[in-house]
Amino acid sequence: MTDNVVRHEGRVSPEARERASGQKGALVWLTGLSASGKSTIARQAEEILFNRGVWTYVLDGDNLRHGLNSDLGFGQADRVENVRRVGEAARLFADAGLVVFVALISPYRADRERVRTLFGAGRFMEVYVKCPLSACEERDPKGLYVRARAGEIAEFTGLDSPYEEPDAPELALDTMALDIGDCAAKIVGMLEERGIVRGS
Amino acid sequence: MTDNVVRHEGRVSPEARERASGQKGALVWLTGLSASGKSTIARQAEEILFNRGVWTYVLDGDNLRHGLNSDLGFGQADRVENVRRVGEAARLFADAGLVVFVALISPYRADRERVRTLFGAGRFMEVYVKCPLSACEERDPKGLYVRARAGEIAEFTGLDSPYEEPDAPELALDTMALDIGDCAAKIVGMLEERGIVRGS
Repeated sequence: MTDNVVRHEGRVSPEARERASGQKGALVWLTGLSASGKSTIARQAEEILFNRGVWTYVLDGDNLRHGLNSDLGFGQADRVENVRRVGEAARLFADAGLVVFVALISPYRADRERVRTLFGAGRFMEVYVKCPLSACEERDPKGLYVRARAGEIAEFTGLDSPYEEPDAPELALDTMALDIGDCAAKIVGMLEERGIVRGS
Repeated sequence: MTDNVVRHEGRVSPEARERASGQKGALVWLTGLSASGKSTIARQAEEILFNRGVWTYVLDGDNLRHGLNSDLGFGQADRVENVRRVGEAARLFADAGLVVFVALISPYRADRERVRTLFGAGRFMEVYVKCPLSACEERDPKGLYVRARAGEIAEFTGLDSPYEEPDAPELALDTMALDIGDCAAKIVGMLEERGIVRGS
């Protein structure tokens, strides 16, 4: 960044947006293994909130690979950049006043913590979608684990690439004990408790 | 993009969002020389819409350079990538149902047209913020033209780097004849005529 770029302040402040909408801009970051259920849970939570009139959006790691991050591969540096950009995009959505969900494996603690620093206190919530590798591999809805085991995909998280569990996530969802609806309801409950959205 | 990324469909469709909100997701892309008034006009239009209850957001080229695009410089390839990412970020906002504004010099026709292809018919509106170089240079609110003339900034659009005017913008704003309020009102009028937002 050179210094010939001036930062513009918006005329419509985040506070004005929040007063008008009754919701706070915030990010719910779902991390976990492939096939742990991150996207499904995020979309279920989104639907609950949408039906209450809350403005939400899901930034899905897979979908972003078709657009914003289509120039990135799966090597170490590109994975870091992938997480960085998703975090920055999410920050824009939160700034616009939305409750934004990110569903992204995001295996490295440091990458996730870097995103957290972009957000004000209480506006970043890490949700660990916890599911044993064996169960993810058994579900394997996209057939990715089979292909990774066959050597067709290298550096697959949980197999030959590490997944670093969150130390102190705002919420941990045990997907072996809870169904999708329970998980989504827990997220919505967290958002209510933290004053991000109003109770139903 | 490798083929081990599956595209997820959202549970909340864009159509459902539009039915609920009474507004359509769309992008208003303001292009023009530095100091032509792009950001100021966009923020004025945003304020008008916000006061009507429309969900909007301004993606400002300068601000994005501090976040999403902070890794990019000002060389030719990085400028192309800058425009591409802003376009992709705007697409996400429009998909979320917002009326999103982009204020970005975006000097090359080809780059702007590439963004247009990301959007459905009628969802991308190019607005040419027209201001003679001499007037921009006289305003020079950030002192950038002075620095560029002094050789401190290379490849400055309008000086030693070209600006390609839009061939057929959805709207052209002559900032020598119209004040900021007029320009913003014309944009809002365009959005009403095109059915993106309801009339006041």
